[in-house]
Amino acid sequence: MKILGIDIGATNTKFVVLENFKRILKKEFSPTPKKKREFFLFLRRKIKEIIEKEKISKIGIGIAGILDQERKKIIFVPNLKFLSRTPLKKIIEKEFKKKIKLENDTNCFTLSEAFFGRAKKNKIIVGLTLGTGIGGCILFKKKIYKGAFGAAGEIGHMVINFERAKCSCRNLGCFEAFGSERFFKRKKVFSKDIEQKARKGDRNAKRIFEEYGRYLGIGISNIINILDPEIIVLGGGEAKAFDLFFPSLKKEIEKRVISPFSRKFVKIKKGKFLDFGGAIGACALFKLN
Amino acid sequence: MKILGIDIGATNTKFVVLENFKRILKKEFSPTPKKKREFFLFLRRKIKEIIEKEKISKIGIGIAGILDQERKKIIFVPNLKFLSRTPLKKIIEKEFKKKIKLENDTNCFTLSEAFFGRAKKNKIIVGLTLGTGIGGCILFKKKIYKGAFGAAGEIGHMVINFERAKCSCRNLGCFEAFGSERFFKRKKVFSKDIEQKARKGDRNAKRIFEEYGRYLGIGISNIINILDPEIIVLGGGEAKAFDLFFPSLKKEIEKRVISPFSRKFVKIKKGKFLDFGGAIGACALFKLN
Repeated sequence: MKILGIDIGATNTKFVVLENFKRILKKEFSPTPKKKREFFLFLRRKIKEIIEKEKISKIGIGIAGILDQERKKIIFVPNLKFLSRTPLKKIIEKEFKKKIKLENDTNCFTLSEAFFGRAKKNKIIVGLTLGTGIGGCILFKKKIYKGAFGAAGEIGHMVINFERAKCSCRNLGCFEAFGSERFFKRKKVFSKDIEQKARKGDRNAKRIFEEYGRYLGIGISNIINILDPEIIVLGGGEAKAFDLFFPSLKKEIEKRVISPFSRKFVKIKKGKFLDFGGAIGACALFKLN
Repeated sequence: MKILGIDIGATNTKFVVLENFKRILKKEFSPTPKKKREFFLFLRRKIKEIIEKEKISKIGIGIAGILDQERKKIIFVPNLKFLSRTPLKKIIEKEFKKKIKLENDTNCFTLSEAFFGRAKKNKIIVGLTLGTGIGGCILFKKKIYKGAFGAAGEIGHMVINFERAKCSCRNLGCFEAFGSERFFKRKKVFSKDIEQKARKGDRNAKRIFEEYGRYLGIGISNIINILDPEIIVLGGGEAKAFDLFFPSLKKEIEKRVISPFSRKFVKIKKGKFLDFGGAIGACALFKLN
């Protein structure tokens, strides 16, 4: 049984073919077209191309946006606005006559780690993707916790400092304003550049990651104090600098987590699937009921 | 079937007798003795007295402290330090030969609201007690969510402003530092006094509650963004001024909660059992498996 997993991101769209939830047969990505017509031509062509080569039975799609409760329609995609209010599931279903599942990309990433990655042995899992924003996902017994109104896990918009740093939601002080790309933008640096510098020993670059780790540590301590998960897995582009920010992140946890047990036993891990986690997790959607 | 519910608080200890989970037959309180010997003499005498009058089959005890995972021992009680490291369950069990259950007081309060109060119809419930500190409790399907290491729900120690306001845990910026009695202490006022003043129309007093509501609104918005509960019930002494702080609390939620559905449908309520909720909830412990 082969599943096609697609992760539609603001920059790139990723494609994965997974066989029997075990073997990855294909991994590829292309830049995401920035206009509606071009985007749909591109998506249809790519799906058709892959379906013709591989015997695909199901298609899972992850997307960086807010979906409706039934996971049929896209409500809002901040970085691909033309996709907002699109009944994506129906469109693809109609054209290709396959079983389709749609889910938020952070949820997909977290599922990839829960089924195939760092959190395989865990029951209470939190996933965070650190990129343009911060995405959050809570899994209980490998199932996405959606809350009462389908909106749980908006961890990026948890306030950690109500007095400064503007967030994408226009409020001050969200975790996202301190723990995403926005942090580096405020410092007027590119995280990729200073990551390289820090790895070469540049002191100032190292200090920036130290500060970044402190902020991540504050937000993650909050999550531990509230949810007390077994493991928190970090994904998204910024997680690639994990080793650079982890020491100062860890220090905050030592300082701020109330329970000595949680402090000692909680695991904070860099995801196994930083680039293709979303697409792999989109396949894992078919492991859920 | 009659249950004795006891709520051991820093100031007062409350006693309730509940018949068939329906009728409250007795409600009383006495000041909590501040020394170990006196405390245990007092507790034993009170229990004996009540047991002799009423046919009590079970005893539930709530306490403002951290308990071990099995809810047998008290690990730490910040405001009654002499009770720390006491195997309270065993002590009472041995003496009175009754079924005993022990639980944290905020959890008891939240159970009282879930079974008999404002949250009877709800499945995803958060309880917050606003007093000397802030206690938190998460209930899923009327069961206490304990997390992976028994420490979930420490909502009072969620950081909302990492730059100012010292908390009881010695860190800066916990929700507790802004949303508990500590807020009023920093303003050098007693909440009871200015509550009276505000009710008489004093502008400055009203403004203090407005500010207090803003802080509560920030912390509660965080909880909604993360957990997306159906209802948040507020208990503890400070909740008595609910009508004074609710308007500004509500404004923060309008501004900060990301999901339009949660923003619209989540309920924020003043608890039904502000004084005896802990003791009533201690009885409700026998409704859980």
